[in-house]
Amino acid sequence: PDMASIAGAKERNGQLTKPPGALGRLEELAIWYAGWRDTDRPSIEKPQVIIFAGNHGVCAQGVSAFPPEVTVQMVANFEHGGAAINQLSKAAGASLDVVALDLDMPTQDFTVAPAMSEGEVVLALIAGWAAVEPETDLLVTGEMGIGNTTSAAAVAAAVLGGDAADWTGRGTGVDDEGLARKTDVVARGLALHDTTDPLEALRCLGGRELAAMAGAIAAARHHRIPVILDGFICSAAAATLEKAVAGSLDHTVAGHLSAEGAHERLLDALGKKPLLSLGLRLGEGSGGTLAINVLKSAIACHSDMATFAEAGVAAG
Amino acid sequence: PDMASIAGAKERNGQLTKPPGALGRLEELAIWYAGWRDTDRPSIEKPQVIIFAGNHGVCAQGVSAFPPEVTVQMVANFEHGGAAINQLSKAAGASLDVVALDLDMPTQDFTVAPAMSEGEVVLALIAGWAAVEPETDLLVTGEMGIGNTTSAAAVAAAVLGGDAADWTGRGTGVDDEGLARKTDVVARGLALHDTTDPLEALRCLGGRELAAMAGAIAAARHHRIPVILDGFICSAAAATLEKAVAGSLDHTVAGHLSAEGAHERLLDALGKKPLLSLGLRLGEGSGGTLAINVLKSAIACHSDMATFAEAGVAAG
Repeated sequence: PDMASIAGAKERNGQLTKPPGALGRLEELAIWYAGWRDTDRPSIEKPQVIIFAGNHGVCAQGVSAFPPEVTVQMVANFEHGGAAINQLSKAAGASLDVVALDLDMPTQDFTVAPAMSEGEVVLALIAGWAAVEPETDLLVTGEMGIGNTTSAAAVAAAVLGGDAADWTGRGTGVDDEGLARKTDVVARGLALHDTTDPLEALRCLGGRELAAMAGAIAAARHHRIPVILDGFICSAAAATLEKAVAGSLDHTVAGHLSAEGAHERLLDALGKKPLLSLGLRLGEGSGGTLAINVLKSAIACHSDMATFAEAGVAAG
Repeated sequence: PDMASIAGAKERNGQLTKPPGALGRLEELAIWYAGWRDTDRPSIEKPQVIIFAGNHGVCAQGVSAFPPEVTVQMVANFEHGGAAINQLSKAAGASLDVVALDLDMPTQDFTVAPAMSEGEVVLALIAGWAAVEPETDLLVTGEMGIGNTTSAAAVAAAVLGGDAADWTGRGTGVDDEGLARKTDVVARGLALHDTTDPLEALRCLGGRELAAMAGAIAAARHHRIPVILDGFICSAAAATLEKAVAGSLDHTVAGHLSAEGAHERLLDALGKKPLLSLGLRLGEGSGGTLAINVLKSAIACHSDMATFAEAGVAAG
C-alpha cells in the first residue's frame, strides 16, 4: 500500500464531523482502501463480482447433497439472472461476470490422482487473472462447483495443517453419514499427494474455480484493486497465496463469516476478521457481495463528509 | 403480521434456487418482512431515514465530551449534506428527513426536575408519529442530541431495571472521570423520579428526540412499515414501547450492535439479535441505515430469484 495515502487518509479521518472513532470499522476500512488506491480520498464506482465455475471428479465419491449436473444448470441460472448472486450484485451496484471452466471435463477424483495436470492448473490461474477488469475498483471472487467444499477442505488442510475433520463441513447440506464419508475422502486425498508446496496443494486437491479465484486475487493485487473475500472456498483458495508469499492477502478483507463449519478457523489462520456474520453458506460470492455496500458506505463517509472546519461544528 | 403472507413467503423460499437455509438470516428477514407487508413477494422501494434532534438540560452536569451547541451545528451539517448519515442514506438509496425539536428550549435537567412536562412529551411523540411517511416501506429512526446517551441510560435503567452503572457508557467519548460523573447523574435521576410507568420514564428522564423515535416506531406499526432500530439511544426509546405493550417491537429488527457499552445488554433485554457489528457509536441512525442494504438484499433474493422449476435446476 501507499503510505502517503494512508497518512493523508488518517489525517482527513480525524477532521470529519464525528467523534473520533465513532464510525468504528468503517474508518479502518476507508484508510486501508485509500492505501491500495493511492489517494487519500478514494471512491468506489465500478465494483466487479466474478463467479468461477468448475466441476469435480471427487463427486464420484458421493460427497455432495446435489448431483454434479447442478453446476452447469446454475451457470445457466446466473446467465439468466435467476440466482441469488444476480440479485445481490444488482443491490450492490456491481457488475457480474460468470466464467465457466471446462464444465464438461471435471477434474480428476483426487482420491486416485492429482485433480489437475500442471497445464490445467496454470490455465485456470490464467483464466482467473484475465477475468479481472483492470478498471475495477473493488473485486469479489465467488464460485460455483458441486463438490467444491470437499476440495476446499483438502486444500485448507494441506496448506494450514490439521486433520481432515478440522476442515470438513456440511457444504450444501450433507447428513452425518455424508459428512463422515466426505471427511474420509479428504483424509485419503491428503495421504495420497505431496502438498508441501501450496501451489501443488491447489493442483492436486483443488479445482479449476479455486485456482481461478487465486489467479484473480493475485491479478487484483497487480492492479491495486482491493478484494472482498467470500466464504470458505474462496478463503481456502486465497490461503494458497498467503502460504506461498506472506502478505499476499494484505489487499483483501473478509466479507463475511460463513455458516460452513471451518470458515472461522480458516479466517483466524489468515488473520482476517469478517465484516458480516449472517449465517450464509451459499457460495456464488454472495457474502462478499453483500459486504460491498459496507465498503461503499465507508468510502462515501470518508471522502464525502464535511470536516469540522467546513461545517462550522465545534470539535469537542 | 399477516400469517398467510408468512406462509406464502416460506413456501416460496423453499422453492428458490439455493440449498435450503443457505441464505441464512436473509431468509428469516425476508419472511418476517413479508408478514408485515401483507404479501409473500414484497419489495423495498422507498426506505426513509428520520433523524430527530433534541437538546438536554442534563448537559449542565458535564456529561458529554462535546458542548450542547453541537446539536444545532450538526443539524445544519445534516441539512447541508456533510454528515455521515447523509453519505450512508445516499449509499442505501434512502430518503433522509431531519426533525429539529425545540433546540433553543432544552429539556429540564432531570437531576432536578422531570425532563419534560406532559404536554411536551406528547408533542414530541406526535412529532415523531407525523414524521413517518405512510408510503415508506422501511424506516430507520435516528437521533442527534448532545447529552442523550445519559438520558438513554436513565430511561433504559428505569424501564429494564438494574443499576445506573449497568447502563451508562462513554457516549461520544468521555474519560473515566466523565463516566463516573455521568453514572452518578443517571443514579440521581433514577432516585428522583417515579418511573414505574414506561411513558413516565420517557417523560422524566428522556428527551424530545427519544420520545419522537418512540412515536415514529409506533406510527410505523400502524402503517405496517418494518423498522430497523439504530443504536443505544434508539433502542432505549423503543424499550419504553415494549415495556408498555409486550410485542410492540415485533415489526422491528436491530440494525447493529453499537460500541456503546450497554447496547448489547439492551438488545438482549429486547430479544433482538443485531444484523451488523462494526463498532459504530455515532448515532444519527448510522448503524440502522447501514443495515438497509442487508434488508434490501434479502428481499431482492426472496422476490426476484428463480425457483428450481423456473430455472430447470435439480433440487438435490
